[in-house]
Amino acid sequence: MPKPVCYSTKAFSTNNATTPLAATTIERRQPADTDVQIKILYCGVCHSDLHFARNEWGFTQYPCVPGHEIVGQVTAVGSGVKKFKVGDTVGVGCLVDSCRTCPDCRSGLEQFCTGMVMTYGSTDKHLGGPTLGGYAQSIVVTEDFVLRIPANLNLAAAAPLLCAGITTYSPLRHWKVGPGQKVGIVGLGGLGHMGVKFARAFGAHVVLFTTSPNKVADAKRLGAHEVVVSKDEAQMAAQAGSFDLILDAVSATHDINAYLNLLKHDGNLVLVGAPEKPLPVAALPLIFRRRSFSGSLIGGLPETQEMLDFCGQHNITSDIEMIRMDQINGAYERMLKSDVKYRFVIDMASLA
Amino acid sequence: MPKPVCYSTKAFSTNNATTPLAATTIERRQPADTDVQIKILYCGVCHSDLHFARNEWGFTQYPCVPGHEIVGQVTAVGSGVKKFKVGDTVGVGCLVDSCRTCPDCRSGLEQFCTGMVMTYGSTDKHLGGPTLGGYAQSIVVTEDFVLRIPANLNLAAAAPLLCAGITTYSPLRHWKVGPGQKVGIVGLGGLGHMGVKFARAFGAHVVLFTTSPNKVADAKRLGAHEVVVSKDEAQMAAQAGSFDLILDAVSATHDINAYLNLLKHDGNLVLVGAPEKPLPVAALPLIFRRRSFSGSLIGGLPETQEMLDFCGQHNITSDIEMIRMDQINGAYERMLKSDVKYRFVIDMASLA
Repeated sequence: MPKPVCYSTKAFSTNNATTPLAATTIERRQPADTDVQIKILYCGVCHSDLHFARNEWGFTQYPCVPGHEIVGQVTAVGSGVKKFKVGDTVGVGCLVDSCRTCPDCRSGLEQFCTGMVMTYGSTDKHLGGPTLGGYAQSIVVTEDFVLRIPANLNLAAAAPLLCAGITTYSPLRHWKVGPGQKVGIVGLGGLGHMGVKFARAFGAHVVLFTTSPNKVADAKRLGAHEVVVSKDEAQMAAQAGSFDLILDAVSATHDINAYLNLLKHDGNLVLVGAPEKPLPVAALPLIFRRRSFSGSLIGGLPETQEMLDFCGQHNITSDIEMIRMDQINGAYERMLKSDVKYRFVIDMASLA
Repeated sequence: MPKPVCYSTKAFSTNNATTPLAATTIERRQPADTDVQIKILYCGVCHSDLHFARNEWGFTQYPCVPGHEIVGQVTAVGSGVKKFKVGDTVGVGCLVDSCRTCPDCRSGLEQFCTGMVMTYGSTDKHLGGPTLGGYAQSIVVTEDFVLRIPANLNLAAAAPLLCAGITTYSPLRHWKVGPGQKVGIVGLGGLGHMGVKFARAFGAHVVLFTTSPNKVADAKRLGAHEVVVSKDEAQMAAQAGSFDLILDAVSATHDINAYLNLLKHDGNLVLVGAPEKPLPVAALPLIFRRRSFSGSLIGGLPETQEMLDFCGQHNITSDIEMIRMDQINGAYERMLKSDVKYRFVIDMASLA
């Protein structure tokens, strides 16, 4: 396949695991056929961005332009595009393509397609090299992987919905969280604070677990009915065997068995944070109550649109701190200290 | 409550974790009201018997009379007994009572009742001290915890159904194993060989995993469509991402992640063996395919009867080696070396 005609756009990238991100210029393909060209207005900062930039999962291809919580405005469309027109407000999440033909793609579970193309860090089928993400002024994405952002949502605060939002919405829906259920959310960060909002919106009784006593008030403001300081053994013991589902959004090493013991029988502890080291899981707490320990990965395109529409109806967005593009390296350091309420979002106008 | 009138029966017991089991005489209550007195004909030997006798889970009360795979004949019934009469062929599994009133009991999930009374090792509500199990000439059990054994089944070979049978039947039913599914069974022992038989009877494509190349032929005889020698990395790799459910019946320490990686997305690895040490579980294999790692514990009384009836209809029993009661300590040593095809059953006539 000949290389398509390209144009240049400003971006922030790094060429190896240890160099800070810096301004650069990258190429994007000119929109063709079913492509949508998007002027990026805001891009959320996900912990995965940092993992990838620093090659902490060991499979980063460089150059690395992170960013998969993208919102912006359509600036051009290919001749075959049916769903979007210039001026539309749109989003792009963690995926920009997939095989489109496998059973997973046909059932809207593109996140499980073995041919799925991540927004950054996959191989770019059009240009070669790695796909380059949303820390950039523009991006070109095939229309089936572009999402509509409800008009009533604050655009900057909607950006984190594209990853933190769907990552927490999808497991709560998949395991059918609703009224009458008691749901725990572990960790009040970018994922956790969205988990609290969704679990509350779905009608569950929501308990937030945090190691920080100073997050109690904020967790309640965000929607938690109860807050448990997880270092307090008496508070933890009081919750034993009472949860239908616990969504664990902590990527630091932590004691999984302490949370498994809080589940009812048939309860499920769902991991959406990704601790680096294997987690020791005791057999008996699983066996004696038929409990499950599961993982969940973002969501497919139809469910991501459903989540955005739900957010529009319920006026749900992320609590954010806006930064300039050139503040990204400092923002990563603050993220490592959990010093953010609750998601950094880059104002892409700052890259001009 | 005054102590009920009792009678003596021969049994095999131990008084501490290190002394071999030996002949003794124990007391049973005389059957009253809803009680059924059973002459024990055969008792299967479960790995839990050994764990309990040796206090390997740390909560054994002594004296310990193990045995919860009991089949026998009704010798007397209380005046209020409605479902059984003298001469009936019956079974008793892991439970002999529960609270009868909690939501779990009312929905037939007595194994999750916090007031459930295990056949051995719980506190005996009638006599005080620990409940005493099936390594004995007779037992007295309230009728709701007594099961019917289909007449066509070999009685000795039916005994292991009461624990090994329901332990494997229940998770395969709970997670809806059936035609069109690929199911793995890890370990060809007392539990595993029953798992193979049930998964095959439910219509699944059955793959048995074993560390022993010399078990391949026998696994196929028992119903496995394929056998994978788990030490062979190429054989394991060829199965990656292909299973709907894997039932893991191994209680020795082993690599859980190797099996998690064999699951499709949304697949489930269900633990029914109980390794002593926590199992390190890697986060990414769970997250990236929305897999689950679960446990399962025997089954409730209605499901245990359903399982026995299913076995009657499909002529399913355990493959057994019959032993005398005085061979029990040697049998434990052979179990520790997995040297049994596939369940020891005690001929209780040998205790006379």
